[in-house]
Amino acid sequence: MRKYFNLAVLVIPFSSAAQGPATVNLLPYVHPIIGTQRMGHTYPGATSPFGMVQLSPDTDTIPYEQNGKYNPDVYKYCAGYQYDDKTIVGFSHTHFSGTGHSDLGDFLIMPTTGELRMNPGVADKPRSGFRSAFTHSTEVAEADYYKVKLEDYNILAELTTTTRVGFHQYSFPATDQAHIILDLLSGIYNYEDKNVWTYVRVENDTLVTGYRETSGWGRTRTVYFAMTFSRPFEQYGSRSFSKKEVYRGFWGKFDQAHNFPEIAGRQIRMHFDFHTTEGEKIKIKFALSSVSTEGALLNLRAEAPGWDFDEVRRQGQAAWNRELGKVQIRAGEEEKINFYTSLYHAFINPTVYMDVDGSYRGLDQVTHKADGFVNYTTFSLWDTHRALHPLFNILQPGRNADMIRSMLAHFNQSPEHMLPIWSFYSNEDWCMSGYHSVSVLADAIVKGNTPFDANQALDACIATSNRRSFMGLGAYIDKGYVPSEVSDVSVSSTLEFAYDDWSIAQAARKLGRTDVYAAYLKRSENYKNVFDPSIGYMRPRLKDGSFRQVFDVLSTDGQGFIEGNAWNYTLYVPHDPAGLIGLMGGKKPFVRHLDSLFTMTLPDKFFAETEDITRDGIIGGYVHGNEPSHHDAYLYNWTDQPWKTQERVRMILGNQYHARPDGLGGNDDTGQMSAWYIFTALGFYPVAPGSEEYSLGSPAIDGAIIALENGKTFSIEARDQGERNVYVRKVTLNGAELTRRYITHEEITNGGNLVFYMSSKH
Amino acid sequence: MRKYFNLAVLVIPFSSAAQGPATVNLLPYVHPIIGTQRMGHTYPGATSPFGMVQLSPDTDTIPYEQNGKYNPDVYKYCAGYQYDDKTIVGFSHTHFSGTGHSDLGDFLIMPTTGELRMNPGVADKPRSGFRSAFTHSTEVAEADYYKVKLEDYNILAELTTTTRVGFHQYSFPATDQAHIILDLLSGIYNYEDKNVWTYVRVENDTLVTGYRETSGWGRTRTVYFAMTFSRPFEQYGSRSFSKKEVYRGFWGKFDQAHNFPEIAGRQIRMHFDFHTTEGEKIKIKFALSSVSTEGALLNLRAEAPGWDFDEVRRQGQAAWNRELGKVQIRAGEEEKINFYTSLYHAFINPTVYMDVDGSYRGLDQVTHKADGFVNYTTFSLWDTHRALHPLFNILQPGRNADMIRSMLAHFNQSPEHMLPIWSFYSNEDWCMSGYHSVSVLADAIVKGNTPFDANQALDACIATSNRRSFMGLGAYIDKGYVPSEVSDVSVSSTLEFAYDDWSIAQAARKLGRTDVYAAYLKRSENYKNVFDPSIGYMRPRLKDGSFRQVFDVLSTDGQGFIEGNAWNYTLYVPHDPAGLIGLMGGKKPFVRHLDSLFTMTLPDKFFAETEDITRDGIIGGYVHGNEPSHHDAYLYNWTDQPWKTQERVRMILGNQYHARPDGLGGNDDTGQMSAWYIFTALGFYPVAPGSEEYSLGSPAIDGAIIALENGKTFSIEARDQGERNVYVRKVTLNGAELTRRYITHEEITNGGNLVFYMSSKH
Repeated sequence: MRKYFNLAVLVIPFSSAAQGPATVNLLPYVHPIIGTQRMGHTYPGATSPFGMVQLSPDTDTIPYEQNGKYNPDVYKYCAGYQYDDKTIVGFSHTHFSGTGHSDLGDFLIMPTTGELRMNPGVADKPRSGFRSAFTHSTEVAEADYYKVKLEDYNILAELTTTTRVGFHQYSFPATDQAHIILDLLSGIYNYEDKNVWTYVRVENDTLVTGYRETSGWGRTRTVYFAMTFSRPFEQYGSRSFSKKEVYRGFWGKFDQAHNFPEIAGRQIRMHFDFHTTEGEKIKIKFALSSVSTEGALLNLRAEAPGWDFDEVRRQGQAAWNRELGKVQIRAGEEEKINFYTSLYHAFINPTVYMDVDGSYRGLDQVTHKADGFVNYTTFSLWDTHRALHPLFNILQPGRNADMIRSMLAHFNQSPEHMLPIWSFYSNEDWCMSGYHSVSVLADAIVKGNTPFDANQALDACIATSNRRSFMGLGAYIDKGYVPSEVSDVSVSSTLEFAYDDWSIAQAARKLGRTDVYAAYLKRSENYKNVFDPSIGYMRPRLKDGSFRQVFDVLSTDGQGFIEGNAWNYTLYVPHDPAGLIGLMGGKKPFVRHLDSLFTMTLPDKFFAETEDITRDGIIGGYVHGNEPSHHDAYLYNWTDQPWKTQERVRMILGNQYHARPDGLGGNDDTGQMSAWYIFTALGFYPVAPGSEEYSLGSPAIDGAIIALENGKTFSIEARDQGERNVYVRKVTLNGAELTRRYITHEEITNGGNLVFYMSSKH
Repeated sequence: MRKYFNLAVLVIPFSSAAQGPATVNLLPYVHPIIGTQRMGHTYPGATSPFGMVQLSPDTDTIPYEQNGKYNPDVYKYCAGYQYDDKTIVGFSHTHFSGTGHSDLGDFLIMPTTGELRMNPGVADKPRSGFRSAFTHSTEVAEADYYKVKLEDYNILAELTTTTRVGFHQYSFPATDQAHIILDLLSGIYNYEDKNVWTYVRVENDTLVTGYRETSGWGRTRTVYFAMTFSRPFEQYGSRSFSKKEVYRGFWGKFDQAHNFPEIAGRQIRMHFDFHTTEGEKIKIKFALSSVSTEGALLNLRAEAPGWDFDEVRRQGQAAWNRELGKVQIRAGEEEKINFYTSLYHAFINPTVYMDVDGSYRGLDQVTHKADGFVNYTTFSLWDTHRALHPLFNILQPGRNADMIRSMLAHFNQSPEHMLPIWSFYSNEDWCMSGYHSVSVLADAIVKGNTPFDANQALDACIATSNRRSFMGLGAYIDKGYVPSEVSDVSVSSTLEFAYDDWSIAQAARKLGRTDVYAAYLKRSENYKNVFDPSIGYMRPRLKDGSFRQVFDVLSTDGQGFIEGNAWNYTLYVPHDPAGLIGLMGGKKPFVRHLDSLFTMTLPDKFFAETEDITRDGIIGGYVHGNEPSHHDAYLYNWTDQPWKTQERVRMILGNQYHARPDGLGGNDDTGQMSAWYIFTALGFYPVAPGSEEYSLGSPAIDGAIIALENGKTFSIEARDQGERNVYVRKVTLNGAELTRRYITHEEITNGGNLVFYMSSKH
């Protein structure tokens, strides 16, 4: 307990997160720059916890398509920023964190000086456009604060946010040609025709309102804004970059390019011009709304009434410190950086998606009012049902319940009568597979985090799991598997449906709905229907019941799987490892399969197939950057060699997470990769959300205090933990030795003390 | 008085329109087909008085552009229908009546049988698409009722409306292939890219909702709908006609073409399929909203809760009869048809533009609520300020005041701080010239029809008339005329600004704002600044004060005028005929000019320049189809030969208005041409709205009773009136002989009896 008390000296003890935040400053451990190089797809800019605004620099504007074909270079810019780039195009207000496909990048703002340039130019031609060179030496990226020097213009740019407002502060040199560019056509994963419509009104010489509609990954997406300047602009103008506008001349009884207050079109950029004195700060507050320009104004006035940038930053960072303080760890400096940056990344998505008065745009594109909850969006559920939402059930149960209420609102608005699959900004994009919302709902129900109507939630799960026209689900219901003819991802769909069905069964059991429990428990066994015992792998099965002949267990391409191969997906029975082990011939062959997974050498060609992770993100055949394997290392706990779980998870922690810009081996996936880190570093992991059990691993921190929303505290200690001491000799819970390989959710929420006794030997 | 009593026998006398409508059936005199051939640009379909829905057949889908160039053929289809066409493409829900440019044509519905065709096909290739042949022999066009047989499908189509709901009734033959096509890409004045976005949700098997955004003449236009079927469709589908949709495949975890309830894109058509028995009626109610699909549903449920087509038709036609009954005339059959069809056309626009709860989309694209008034749109003010709004001040003062309130709401929402110029559907399109809203407001103020804040209205007029960046207005304010270098229509703008300024002065005088009165009275004399005494015509003037050298007094092209030439526009000083006569050298030369106007022979080339009227629409050099001349015939009243006014107006009435499809010699211009007819047929005309005076002409009816909203009655009698008896021998008002050539508004609104004693000799 010595180390534990050492830690306690550093903090002012607290009895509940609600009563008062820790005063320890955890912000130095948050490095938003982590993951911005290569494949992490995180962004370095400013955002508030779960904030609606993500105000961040974009370093290029690669189109999604070139010459009518997908442009693979776009993938680097899922979050708008790549660490290796030398120029910044501007600062836009919406960004996904860590996704493997993208959209957003709305309302790019760029301050410039000198000759007015209305196009971004290209990176390798200085002064070819409004973009500017920058260097990392002037760059500061903190939670809710970003600063950089725009070298071409000698402008210091600073950014911070409130939940719904981006706050810019630009320190200009003395010039009679200072400009603020508002680029309304720039976006992430842009392509010709992605911009559906843009509408702007210059209300007066400090206030501009409008909206932007796009059709990209989100098919019907509208974002409204209200933009206010700290001082009047002297003149302004707009330019349309559309190839053709039939009526542009017709509309023009005015000179529409200069000081004309109504601007609309598909490809619009604007400029606002100033004379500035040396060091003069021009500040911009930029509020968003999904509902209306009025809503954006409401948000602006409610959240950021004043012009004190430093005060807004202080409040934003204090909010972060409160959230981060929910887990206070003892660990080495790098571990702390990895841990708190992971916690930061985990607390970005889903994002708040409503105005301060509760108004939000529903899936039906109609304005709704969130009644008694905060509405959230950006549900990357194929990823986040695994560890992020379970993490929220511990650290953010209130928010998680509101996220579920948001998902139920989506359900009510869905003409397919389905919970979200992958949804954002009032759109369902149907990305990935399974219906993993049900896992999130079931996990909350099973864990008792249900300040909503749990039976109604279960009914939504049941309805979702019976939409026959969705991805071969009808055939799955009829035959017990998705036939290979019906879907390209028939095997992973079958496995994911089976797991999701199991989670429905668990929720039904909790709610005493035994008929539902029995029916879905039966459905959950469908994983067995795609296991080919003759080869020992999950395998595509045809309508006639036979297994597909042509089959490559290593390839991820065209084999019936999504983001994985047969080696990985064969292990994807998180809800019934024992049953899987039985199918695979018992524990010995199962361990052999697992061992091989982590140690095999993949032929080169398979790396090329794996789009969104670097070679570093692959350990043997284990692909940590792709989520279907996230539970794999914990499966040793179901064998006689649980020490291999301890060894493997430490190896993965050390191998896949680093406190440097390229520190993430794959897309963070809106926090799922980070949630894996947090759970695993704390020593346990939710192998099958919907279960109350967390499988024990090997803690990578020396100690942790988790401040629960119920006011209780759960502490973890890892005695003698270290780089070599990765094996767990003994575990005690509240002083009593644990004879099982898991702890339960109730044991955490009751508060208590979990002690791991670590050793260098297993 | 004998004839008067004869008429009274036919009607049940009424003391006020509010207390009870006349029971005389005036509907037989309404022939919506008038004006549908050639240049009238009216439509034959169903609409309610000032209704938000105009449900009418479209007979072709000519694009606004072909090969990137304006397609002059489109002009015939301003209202969607041309009488000479042999096929109907479908029935759409929004149409302008009589405009000279166009837009709308939203949500085209077509019932078909047999093989499903998802494109309209071409007129001369039967069965090349979903369009159908029809003949006028099966066609019935009444106020708020339209019927036609669709020959290709043996379907009887019937249409009626409520204010906000289109009601379709289709009687099908027995078939297992009955379809309802919902064409969401069709529109009037369509062109590639006009459709900005379309969004549809199939809520259940009888309800479909969605919206359509377009950018045409109305730059940022959105119309929402809710569509309900009288019986469930059996299946449905959609097809996208966009050349390219980057994400269409990506979005597709379903078969999106069949029975998939979320549809979105730029170019969408849908089909709903049925089995029908012989004569089975499939009915559709289609509600509109400017605000939301929820608003459309609200309108649907409030206005058309049931499925009784005949009852909805009966109510709609009763509403028309009440409106038409405000003027009950004695006249010959053809005169009655011309008169009541004119009254019908005058009571179509402006149209109601709000949901039943008062919600409407403002000019700022934000949802507003009309507080205590009905919000209207479609203000073709360059046309309608002349006679239509003055007519409303007599027959529809309540609606006219609400139209003004709507214009004030527009002003409040306008970032230019201007009243509407030519506005519709939340858009200002800046069409034509002048700022004639001020005339409408001033006319109501002067005539005391001000159940709104008249001073606030005057302030809006003042602000509008001082927007310096509008059409050379800054130069006009500085120099007293619009210099030729600044505008292509510098002369007509100067003249129109001067008249508008005079109307502001009149309103200011009425409100006791003497400084405004003096300033604007001075501005109203600016017409003198573009009169070139050396040639006796209004003429373009350069910045340096000199008149433009190259100048053609007959041409309408490039001479500084809009829809007119120097001959016509020289007479455009409606507010100061005496001053004009002085400029032109006195009454004799003035009469000579007027006489020549009506009798001259124009060289052929000038007919080609005059876009929107046929050769029939031109009398000598007088172009009745273009509004700047509408007061011309009355100008003889300011000379010693007032009998020429009487002669000319009767000649124009007989020459320009006929009870047949090609009965209008030019565009009806949302009722301005019709309002001219009504005033002139009744025997008086508002030469200068903003004045209380109506200039007396020659009544073309035998008698009329006008039921005023204040409960009083104003009757007109034209003793011995006839085809030859066009001259006015004597006029008595309430029995006393009139020694002046005008009556006042107050004399009308006080109630009374105006008797013209007609003669064949002047």
